[in-house]
Amino acid sequence: MNVWNDLLELAAELSDLSGIAELMDWDQQVVMPRGGAAARAAQAATLARIRHDKLTSKRLGVRLAAAERIRKPAGRLNAALLRHLRREYDRAVRMPAALSAELASAAALTQSAWETARSRNDFSAVAPGLSRLVELSRTAAACQSPAAPYDALLDQYEEGATAADLDRMFAPLRAGGSALIAEIMAGQGEAPSYLDWSYAPELQWRFCREVVSVMGYDWRHGRLDAAEHPFTTGMGGGDVRITTHIYRNRVLSGVFSCIHECGHALYDQGIPPRFRRTPVGDGASLGFHESQSRLWENQVGRSPEFWQYFLPRLRRVFPGRLDRVRLEEFMAGVNRVESSLIRTEADEVSYNQHILLRFDLERELIAGRLQVSDLPGAWRAKSLEYLGTAPENDRDGVLQDVHWYCGLFGYFPTYTIGNMIAAGLWRTLEKDVPDLKNAIAAGDFRPLRTELRRRIHRFGALYTPAELRTRLFGTPELDGRLLLDYLRCKYSAAR
Amino acid sequence: MNVWNDLLELAAELSDLSGIAELMDWDQQVVMPRGGAAARAAQAATLARIRHDKLTSKRLGVRLAAAERIRKPAGRLNAALLRHLRREYDRAVRMPAALSAELASAAALTQSAWETARSRNDFSAVAPGLSRLVELSRTAAACQSPAAPYDALLDQYEEGATAADLDRMFAPLRAGGSALIAEIMAGQGEAPSYLDWSYAPELQWRFCREVVSVMGYDWRHGRLDAAEHPFTTGMGGGDVRITTHIYRNRVLSGVFSCIHECGHALYDQGIPPRFRRTPVGDGASLGFHESQSRLWENQVGRSPEFWQYFLPRLRRVFPGRLDRVRLEEFMAGVNRVESSLIRTEADEVSYNQHILLRFDLERELIAGRLQVSDLPGAWRAKSLEYLGTAPENDRDGVLQDVHWYCGLFGYFPTYTIGNMIAAGLWRTLEKDVPDLKNAIAAGDFRPLRTELRRRIHRFGALYTPAELRTRLFGTPELDGRLLLDYLRCKYSAAR
Repeated sequence: MNVWNDLLELAAELSDLSGIAELMDWDQQVVMPRGGAAARAAQAATLARIRHDKLTSKRLGVRLAAAERIRKPAGRLNAALLRHLRREYDRAVRMPAALSAELASAAALTQSAWETARSRNDFSAVAPGLSRLVELSRTAAACQSPAAPYDALLDQYEEGATAADLDRMFAPLRAGGSALIAEIMAGQGEAPSYLDWSYAPELQWRFCREVVSVMGYDWRHGRLDAAEHPFTTGMGGGDVRITTHIYRNRVLSGVFSCIHECGHALYDQGIPPRFRRTPVGDGASLGFHESQSRLWENQVGRSPEFWQYFLPRLRRVFPGRLDRVRLEEFMAGVNRVESSLIRTEADEVSYNQHILLRFDLERELIAGRLQVSDLPGAWRAKSLEYLGTAPENDRDGVLQDVHWYCGLFGYFPTYTIGNMIAAGLWRTLEKDVPDLKNAIAAGDFRPLRTELRRRIHRFGALYTPAELRTRLFGTPELDGRLLLDYLRCKYSAAR
Repeated sequence: MNVWNDLLELAAELSDLSGIAELMDWDQQVVMPRGGAAARAAQAATLARIRHDKLTSKRLGVRLAAAERIRKPAGRLNAALLRHLRREYDRAVRMPAALSAELASAAALTQSAWETARSRNDFSAVAPGLSRLVELSRTAAACQSPAAPYDALLDQYEEGATAADLDRMFAPLRAGGSALIAEIMAGQGEAPSYLDWSYAPELQWRFCREVVSVMGYDWRHGRLDAAEHPFTTGMGGGDVRITTHIYRNRVLSGVFSCIHECGHALYDQGIPPRFRRTPVGDGASLGFHESQSRLWENQVGRSPEFWQYFLPRLRRVFPGRLDRVRLEEFMAGVNRVESSLIRTEADEVSYNQHILLRFDLERELIAGRLQVSDLPGAWRAKSLEYLGTAPENDRDGVLQDVHWYCGLFGYFPTYTIGNMIAAGLWRTLEKDVPDLKNAIAAGDFRPLRTELRRRIHRFGALYTPAELRTRLFGTPELDGRLLLDYLRCKYSAAR
């Protein structure tokens, strides 16, 4: 069918341009000299404009309509191709070019204003920019869905997600999260002293490389580098790079970032090469992607079995340093719960509380029920509610995350969606894969990787997130109770 | 003037796309995991096609014609903008899209066949691919200039150059080069033993960084990495990256590559920021670019003054290693002449003989007077003529350089053009800058850098190569005798 070939060709071009944009972003975050920033911004804008022109081209519109008129069943890959292109095309044509450009430029300006504002702890310096971004995002969302703008924002990152669905799924966490944190904290002893010893960065790097190698990271199709904020970039199938940040005095930080990013990378590396250069050659959604990174980081990486295998190896990398730290004490550090103020440093339990806080606030902002000027106060109130503590300054509060300041509204909930999928997935894996924990304790991650590939990775973005959840769990619904139960069990077992 | 703004905007877009392509190439040569090659090739092809479409667009054609109709003088920058865009546009529209695609694909295939053929010393394996490339290049060149196809190839790399001009300029080298090599070799002693000692790579890196820092390399706008074949990439002004290759047993190799590439980079870093995103924000030609790298590498880097400053620093980096190697002995190693078979390892004197050999042969190939099947024999004959020695196998002969196997015909002469410009430039600098050598001996490169900026860098590609040569030397003509005299003086002084 000529129409399908045409669509594949257009999709390949769009996918090539996305891959190039990913490379430019990786380069900027990892290797680019500072003086290259201005030229890079211009290049990125040019590339984005070209991609937008291709995406909204008449040619694509005509081909999509032609493909939709074909009565013969399309086959699974073509059907998915059509779904993704239609979705991207519609979103792009609904968005006025001028608004898109204004949003991009406001985001760039506000992000750089945020950097200064954050370092000076001065919210007022960035408040006008943030107000403008809220306004522009609301207008842009209304172009997609005038009746439910916030849902349109959500849908951008998690296809099909609505605030009402999330409210229902998140309800158990809302009800039981704070109490669980308080309960765990009351029962835990002092922080193990090894946590803040000094660990030579070059040795931490060596250990990180060992860990991701054992996890199954494919070095022929990737690399590990240092970055200020750890991230994973899949720049077109076949090249999936991870990054981490090593702190001399926080030995767990670097390796857990590594495990997390490697979880993302194993997803990307597990997608079949035949999906490359199509929109199917990607994860099913941000939530699904996060489910992989979180499952590796938390369910696997924070388990005693994982460290039964790796603690002796960590000891070997730092000879004489950790000999007297027993596995139990080590795990007490790995799983320590603290109602800390900073999301990116949060433990497995309080993490979702941070997300609930942001979910509540960003909905109010987009709905126009909360003004940016009232945001710092609202943040402190929500922080008390969800975490039992409030930040003393905005740097540790409303200024801590970059997301809103570069126009990412509706993004935060995908983190907790990922945690919920991971909890559900782990429950089925524990049942279905008999020797899973023994294999992990022996450093054999093949059974786990095989199952993740079989159940998730091999489909790429063939299914919608809801379809894939139904395949996995028999229902598209995610149950927050599963996540809460998993945490409750884990922490009661540890005591 | 609206037309000028329009042209500037189109030029900025083309320049952004070139900068992105440069980044992709740098990434591939320096950091990309091997498994990313297929996706990268697809992305590069997509980007090249998009750039070609933009370059041959009706919009650009109409704007160029409109700008050319304007009677009012355009101003120097606009005039240069028009000249470059017209030149690129004409070249692109004269070239049939199918031929361009075939050439790109044949080049990619033949280059990868060359890698295998070279490692197996098997010219016959790559001969059919090379024949095809010669044929396609000839056809492509004839699209530009049916009467003088080889000149069209030359012009691509060195605007305005013709084989007849080069013959005239190169004549003294042809006449006197071999004799000079023989003369110098007869007079020099044994190779100093320090040349092939073992030097720890990480310390060589440290020394390389020190050298380019002192030369004035701007780290805020660049970085130094390892690459198989050293090169410089200017990916849009403001980000000029250099690479080198460190060999444990060849201490001079890595640092001289570094000095050479840093010469290129100082040119790019010295072009005024206001030229960025225009075709003027580049060097005047490949020959001019090579003049900068060669001048730093040879006239500066192989001078006793340079090492008067740096040898003590090299000794400090390798404590105890070079203490007994005196400056004179060190310089005997730095300036050792050998009629070696490999161009990239050639000394300052025999280097041009390698170029003459290739210049002669590629002209005959393009003219159809030499068949690819006869090329290995012709190479050996020319090698005897120019270097006094012939390779025993094709790996050290016709298979040594990648250029022809990726379709670069007419490129080699720019190296000797660069050497001739450097010789002429050095002669004027020696006269005009009174304390130049003392400054170098004191590690003060500012006077030299200032002069190079003033005379060359600050103009970017504002002038044609011939115009810039006229500005520098009062005539566009380059005199091969100047280069020969410089070499003769240098080597007679050293004895």
